Amino acid sequence: MLNTLIVGASGYAGVELATFLNRHPHMNITALAVSAQSPDAGKRLSDLHPQLKGILDLPLEPLSDVSVWADKVDVVFLATAHEVSHDLAPQFLAAGCVVFDLSGAFRVNDGDFYTRYYGFTHQHAAWLEKAVYGLAEWQHDAIKEAQLIAVPGCYPTASQLALKPLIEAGLLNDAQWPVINATSGVSGAGRKASLNNSFCEVSLQPYGIFNHRHHPEIVAHLGVPVIFTPHLGNFPRGILATITCRLQPGVSREDIAEAFHNAYQDKPLVRIYEQGVPALKSVVGLPFCDIGFAVQDEHLIVVAAEDNLLKGAASQAVQCLNIRFGFPETQSLI
Amino acid sequence: MLNTLIVGASGYAGVELATFLNRHPHMNITALAVSAQSPDAGKRLSDLHPQLKGILDLPLEPLSDVSVWADKVDVVFLATAHEVSHDLAPQFLAAGCVVFDLSGAFRVNDGDFYTRYYGFTHQHAAWLEKAVYGLAEWQHDAIKEAQLIAVPGCYPTASQLALKPLIEAGLLNDAQWPVINATSGVSGAGRKASLNNSFCEVSLQPYGIFNHRHHPEIVAHLGVPVIFTPHLGNFPRGILATITCRLQPGVSREDIAEAFHNAYQDKPLVRIYEQGVPALKSVVGLPFCDIGFAVQDEHLIVVAAEDNLLKGAASQAVQCLNIRFGFPETQSLI
Amino acid sequence: MLNTLIVGASGYAGVELATFLNRHPHMNITALAVSAQSPDAGKRLSDLHPQLKGILDLPLEPLSDVSVWADKVDVVFLATAHEVSHDLAPQFLAAGCVVFDLSGAFRVNDGDFYTRYYGFTHQHAAWLEKAVYGLAEWQHDAIKEAQLIAVPGCYPTASQLALKPLIEAGLLNDAQWPVINATSGVSGAGRKASLNNSFCEVSLQPYGIFNHRHHPEIVAHLGVPVIFTPHLGNFPRGILATITCRLQPGVSREDIAEAFHNAYQDKPLVRIYEQGVPALKSVVGLPFCDIGFAVQDEHLIVVAAEDNLLKGAASQAVQCLNIRFGFPETQSLI
Amino acid sequence: MLNTLIVGASGYAGVELATFLNRHPHMNITALAVSAQSPDAGKRLSDLHPQLKGILDLPLEPLSDVSVWADKVDVVFLATAHEVSHDLAPQFLAAGCVVFDLSGAFRVNDGDFYTRYYGFTHQHAAWLEKAVYGLAEWQHDAIKEAQLIAVPGCYPTASQLALKPLIEAGLLNDAQWPVINATSGVSGAGRKASLNNSFCEVSLQPYGIFNHRHHPEIVAHLGVPVIFTPHLGNFPRGILATITCRLQPGVSREDIAEAFHNAYQDKPLVRIYEQGVPALKSVVGLPFCDIGFAVQDEHLIVVAAEDNLLKGAASQAVQCLNIRFGFPETQSLI
Repeated sequence: MLNTLIVGASGYAGVELATFLNRHPHMNITALAVSAQSPDAGKRLSDLHPQLKGILDLPLEPLSDVSVWADKVDVVFLATAHEVSHDLAPQFLAAGCVVFDLSGAFRVNDGDFYTRYYGFTHQHAAWLEKAVYGLAEWQHDAIKEAQLIAVPGCYPTASQLALKPLIEAGLLNDAQWPVINATSGVSGAGRKASLNNSFCEVSLQPYGIFNHRHHPEIVAHLGVPVIFTPHLGNFPRGILATITCRLQPGVSREDIAEAFHNAYQDKPLVRIYEQGVPALKSVVGLPFCDIGFAVQDEHLIVVAAEDNLLKGAASQAVQCLNIRFGFPETQSLI
Repeated sequence: MLNTLIVGASGYAGVELATFLNRHPHMNITALAVSAQSPDAGKRLSDLHPQLKGILDLPLEPLSDVSVWADKVDVVFLATAHEVSHDLAPQFLAAGCVVFDLSGAFRVNDGDFYTRYYGFTHQHAAWLEKAVYGLAEWQHDAIKEAQLIAVPGCYPTASQLALKPLIEAGLLNDAQWPVINATSGVSGAGRKASLNNSFCEVSLQPYGIFNHRHHPEIVAHLGVPVIFTPHLGNFPRGILATITCRLQPGVSREDIAEAFHNAYQDKPLVRIYEQGVPALKSVVGLPFCDIGFAVQDEHLIVVAAEDNLLKGAASQAVQCLNIRFGFPETQSLI
Repeated sequence: MLNTLIVGASGYAGVELATFLNRHPHMNITALAVSAQSPDAGKRLSDLHPQLKGILDLPLEPLSDVSVWADKVDVVFLATAHEVSHDLAPQFLAAGCVVFDLSGAFRVNDGDFYTRYYGFTHQHAAWLEKAVYGLAEWQHDAIKEAQLIAVPGCYPTASQLALKPLIEAGLLNDAQWPVINATSGVSGAGRKASLNNSFCEVSLQPYGIFNHRHHPEIVAHLGVPVIFTPHLGNFPRGILATITCRLQPGVSREDIAEAFHNAYQDKPLVRIYEQGVPALKSVVGLPFCDIGFAVQDEHLIVVAAEDNLLKGAASQAVQCLNIRFGFPETQSLI
Repeated sequence: MLNTLIVGASGYAGVELATFLNRHPHMNITALAVSAQSPDAGKRLSDLHPQLKGILDLPLEPLSDVSVWADKVDVVFLATAHEVSHDLAPQFLAAGCVVFDLSGAFRVNDGDFYTRYYGFTHQHAAWLEKAVYGLAEWQHDAIKEAQLIAVPGCYPTASQLALKPLIEAGLLNDAQWPVINATSGVSGAGRKASLNNSFCEVSLQPYGIFNHRHHPEIVAHLGVPVIFTPHLGNFPRGILATITCRLQPGVSREDIAEAFHNAYQDKPLVRIYEQGVPALKSVVGLPFCDIGFAVQDEHLIVVAAEDNLLKGAASQAVQCLNIRFGFPETQSLI
């Protein structure tokens, strides 16, 4: 049994993490924590999220002294803000914990990236270099050896799982940038009081055009430029990404099917559609990324769907845990 | 042309008021105002509510000195918090304005009521006594003479329109209190950042059981006790009230139909269903209260539906204006 | 391992049943079936419900000859229309199968009940008599011995779980009938093309006032008259019931709490709230019925929430299976 | 006063047409009609759409003999299926009526278009040639002279209003096709019983990829190739189109703003955003198409939003009527 601490357990991704880990046969939740300033500190998780009543009634500990917990646990999950993860992760790592960070703080091995897109100067270049990007289907071997796993963002997971096989196989025409249009549920904005997220204000609309933080994350890891336009949708959970690409001359539907097959044939949490494309409802509440596509002449539309809180956050973190410690990859996820 | 000022124009009821008055042939919107402390002050209404772009682009004036506006306008609409209306209304009234107050500050002629249910000591007993309760279908003659009209709350409007004809006709068995179960859209909670109203938190649930402020308002004006259980629903607008009553022995379906007919036959904004009961969608965006009912033996179910922001707030205020100044009752509402 | 057949597996309750049984360590799904006339016959379950792709890809067998399957399975789940269950159940029972019927065909031991409320003459009085009503928390011992378990309807489950402890403890004043106002998600109407269920038509509204089939089911099993008003809500899943009761003189909040405690203290799938009342979201996707209440003088409001497809159908059927065969009561449900 | 007949009045676009025309000071609704086979024939419009109760209670006449009505009316609106419009329009035209057809039957002056994309052989080449495409902002002068106005489809209206000014001004780089990703509310599929449109089945998803009928309509009228991917969204009304374009080298934000300004400065029903992009809610229930955009280097994102039933159907038809007969362009629309 591995002892684990979940920091930021009261947020939407945190509560999903707690639910998965609570039923994981090899994990013991030592504690749930929130920042010492959080109004949620001291409450039980099931007071904030009554669906967990009777299932997971642990209190939310105020995290003041990291060392208190670092010695008691083997594994730490950080479902915290970027700056908080940036500060906490090295402390837990120094104590020997394996850390799964769901924030953006260690996703790109480039200090300038943080100055530019996150507005802070990264202080932990060594850990940035050692961190493994937890795109589970593509980093299996690196994850097995890692002490710090930076779990990808929700949009980057869907976008990369859809595009990476095509890029690796050399099927895309680089005269034209892939156009990623993606729509996310409101939970992507986190659990907080905000007029933007209030029920009567939410409506389908693009946001962060040309300046969303997930754009450079996608570009950094794919290695090609893309156009990325995120949208807020009027639903609580899920991401649907519709990606328009131009193919190299002569690329056929079969070539694309083969590229996806080769990439994911033994990957249980990516489901490739032989025909048709996924709908959002097919993945909400599930740990999958579903991918379908359509081709016409040199034009390719790839559609990827996932639950932003699961494959886009919590279940991918647990999937990385399973890989890291040699548990079955889908343990406690399906 | 009457000049008018709308205070609290940036809220959900305020923007509906502004829309109605903007197309009213006898009204001139002199200004829109918000409290001087509001972060909305200085913005254009259409910046906050882009559906009004090109239709109503007036700025939101910070209301600091009432006298500046009181001299320029004939009519004032207060879509403000109870305490704010309590303080502002007398100032505008003293200057001779006719005031339509959408808050609870002048709805019940009983100072104790405010101490008990609103938590403040009412300072304006004289105005409280002069105020006319703007339940339009029942206060026609009083409204015509009033200087201060206290527009009813959203739940009380639906509840009273449904029950008053039955009570007046003596059809209800007073051995049993009417049971009012009502569900309101989220806009009823106002336009503000709040975790309770955030998209991912909203879910059908009762609230304010046995202690909602609208309960004593209903009881005070109906003159009979009721049980009132409000619910929050997962939709932006509208109220549906399902009311269970016990009838006096021998009361027939025809008696009930006749009571409703007598009460509303010449009232254009209450629609009585000859058969069936209303659905919420039949009234959203419209100034009606729709009422249907079903009878079995001594049991009566009355269903009333309205848009909480319209017949439950803004359109009823304009309906009162129309009555007060002798305009057609539905002017600019349908 | 018990072999099982699920008939009606393509409907909303059927797919939930299939999901639970697919992960049940003691159950083997021998086949999924639909009626021979169904357009779904021959398709894979995951073609109709892509969320199951890769999890449960079995085909939907057209059920023509019952004997083909009756000999191969130990347990049959019928998620079929009333008339279909009425005809199929006796055939499977005769072959020795244990049958869990989710329809209304065997819920009330009274032939007249079916003539009157279901419009057909019941042909199987002997089985009607032997059938055990599967309200799991109240029929534990009878279920253990039963061959035919008639799983309760969705509204009756929530209504009875809320009221039965109070009635048994003699806390309710029988001068006044309990008033049950309940709102169900659209899935309660089944998976079928219908204008009433179409996205643009659905809206909060009462239906079946004074004549819904679940009313006599509730009355028959509670043994007291009630007023029951069902509503359609604009959400896919869940039921919230708000029940207004009159208490015997002198009954206190503590008395009510004690009655619920006594009834459910060792029942893992009913959660009693010490304070507050449940919201719909706390139970959607979960096998619980959550109950909370509020008291004022002689007035009691009880609120019960459940997922109509789970505790109101599929999970309660599996809960009955677990009880019947001595598995842990929550096996594969949480 | 012009007498008018609305055929197909019971559908979602039909009921909007009826509402606009009912309040139009120069129009008299002579009758509402549906096909003789429709189950709606004989019912009152307000029985099907209770929001119109007391506002528009006319019966739905079964349309059997066109000549009965053709002689009585000046103007006909066809909110009917393509094949029905194809057959009816010439009959009304022959009788001298002015016809506004909301179907696709006369939108593209090319018989092959119908064979290929609509699956029928067009029989009325002469009328096809005379028909004016009612994209109101761009066909003002032609509409004024037309007897047959083919009102554009919902997606084509948003797409063309967004792209046409840029194409006309020569700002787009034709090395790359504009990528149109658009999401429509469920009402776009019409008012009919269908599993696809049922409440529990609807979910965000692309459909008709590379083969939606609106694609060739857009291409035919824009004169340039585009990639068009429609999506079904989980909301009743509205379309949001996000269009990704490549600009000619050196084109600036100001150039784009100027192109939009020149195209729409005197067009009251297209609203150009000086900054930001529209959200769906800003246009639902309103007759506008709202357009905003963002530029980065050679990349342009244009976002257009409209109500699919209004600017994408009924209000644009009435806008064309207003232009055709010299009424103010926004008469009865705002």
